[in-house]
Amino acid sequence: MKKFSELIYSYEVEDKLAISKRESHTPKIEAPKEVKAGEAFSVRIYIQGHPNTLQHSFRWIELYVYEEGREFNPIFVARAELTPEISEQEATFKVKLNKSGGIYAVAYCNLHGVWENRQEIKIT
Amino acid sequence: MKKFSELIYSYEVEDKLAISKRESHTPKIEAPKEVKAGEAFSVRIYIQGHPNTLQHSFRWIELYVYEEGREFNPIFVARAELTPEISEQEATFKVKLNKSGGIYAVAYCNLHGVWENRQEIKIT
Amino acid sequence: MKKFSELIYSYEVEDKLAISKRESHTPKIEAPKEVKAGEAFSVRIYIQGHPNTLQHSFRWIELYVYEEGREFNPIFVARAELTPEISEQEATFKVKLNKSGGIYAVAYCNLHGVWENRQEIKIT
Amino acid sequence: MKKFSELIYSYEVEDKLAISKRESHTPKIEAPKEVKAGEAFSVRIYIQGHPNTLQHSFRWIELYVYEEGREFNPIFVARAELTPEISEQEATFKVKLNKSGGIYAVAYCNLHGVWENRQEIKIT
Repeated sequence: MKKFSELIYSYEVEDKLAISKRESHTPKIEAPKEVKAGEAFSVRIYIQGHPNTLQHSFRWIELYVYEEGREFNPIFVARAELTPEISEQEATFKVKLNKSGGIYAVAYCNLHGVWENRQEIKIT
Repeated sequence: MKKFSELIYSYEVEDKLAISKRESHTPKIEAPKEVKAGEAFSVRIYIQGHPNTLQHSFRWIELYVYEEGREFNPIFVARAELTPEISEQEATFKVKLNKSGGIYAVAYCNLHGVWENRQEIKIT
Repeated sequence: MKKFSELIYSYEVEDKLAISKRESHTPKIEAPKEVKAGEAFSVRIYIQGHPNTLQHSFRWIELYVYEEGREFNPIFVARAELTPEISEQEATFKVKLNKSGGIYAVAYCNLHGVWENRQEIKIT
Repeated sequence: MKKFSELIYSYEVEDKLAISKRESHTPKIEAPKEVKAGEAFSVRIYIQGHPNTLQHSFRWIELYVYEEGREFNPIFVARAELTPEISEQEATFKVKLNKSGGIYAVAYCNLHGVWENRQEIKIT
């Protein structure tokens, strides 16, 4: 039996079937590349070109943070539970960081599993 | 023993102690008053003037919808779980409605309980 | 527009339509009536006689606590997000209390709204 | 920047620092090894020998399922959000499966990250 971590998809997947899903399943991140320490900034995570029906949708979206130099990463920041059809497949959170590192978006499609994406952030 | 619904605070509370908390605890709603049917719009729910520490913060924020003429309301739309200090006490969701009614914001402070607010929305 | 709290159903509802739903929608609580302070005990919350399909099911179940003498109640204890068909409509949590009061079960059916139930607990 | 999946710890970790945490952080699973198709069974996920304080605790526990032969795994089954001190670090869900495979427990400690465990289940 595989580890759970081996089941998480990212844009870099090599399996053909998963490659056909990666454009519509990899969560997109809208966030600054550089921010001042302790200054609040928005992180928008969204899914593009994906159905949003009861039968097939992203049920939740999560945001984690990676801090350079921290012994154990990641830090859980926020999670949005969504409702098919009525809520779009996106969420915007506001975050304050004190150390450089990065942010992770993790999202779950009820038919095609758990997908992640990431973006580095420099704290100045 | 009171009903759970009797424990939910809103800006209209009459108890003196709760009145002293209502400015910093009633979730604020930023959303249009009128939108076209089926057109996605943003709903930002936020807390203002409240601590955001491990000891005292809003742990989660929820969004519900009320549809005029529906037999059973509300409809659960989205929920944001938050992390003290690192995530600000707010969340922005995107929503599509087809019928007039309203939206509810519900939020939980670990020291001062469950607070709600509401706003009517007209669908044209 | 009604307050959010006015939309929460309980077994005591007086509306005829809601009365017809109360047996299958009021969450049931399985918990001791009396426990020792600081001693962990199980709380099982379950729904009985209700469909469990993608189209119609309880999407989540929550557990809150009421502490006698506390200025602001309730305290959020735990929440279970469920998946139709694959997870049954129930959750069991383990809890430690230090003061007498009660527990609340709150659960959401995607078609028939938010339902609550409650049970007093004496701490000895 | 590492992938999110590379940050998930399991009992098999090789890093010395993580090895020192694995006994108290790997979620334990209590579930049958063999069940009949469509027959509900309990899955208890729990953490043992770990602090449960506001400063340091498991904040949530998740349950996923792996189905043999399914193109995209895993399937999200349930998630328990917990509250330090008042709720113990465990949750019990009830599940129905139709195909052999396995279950995953995933849990998050606010200081030491995301930990997983797994167990095969044969459906007869």
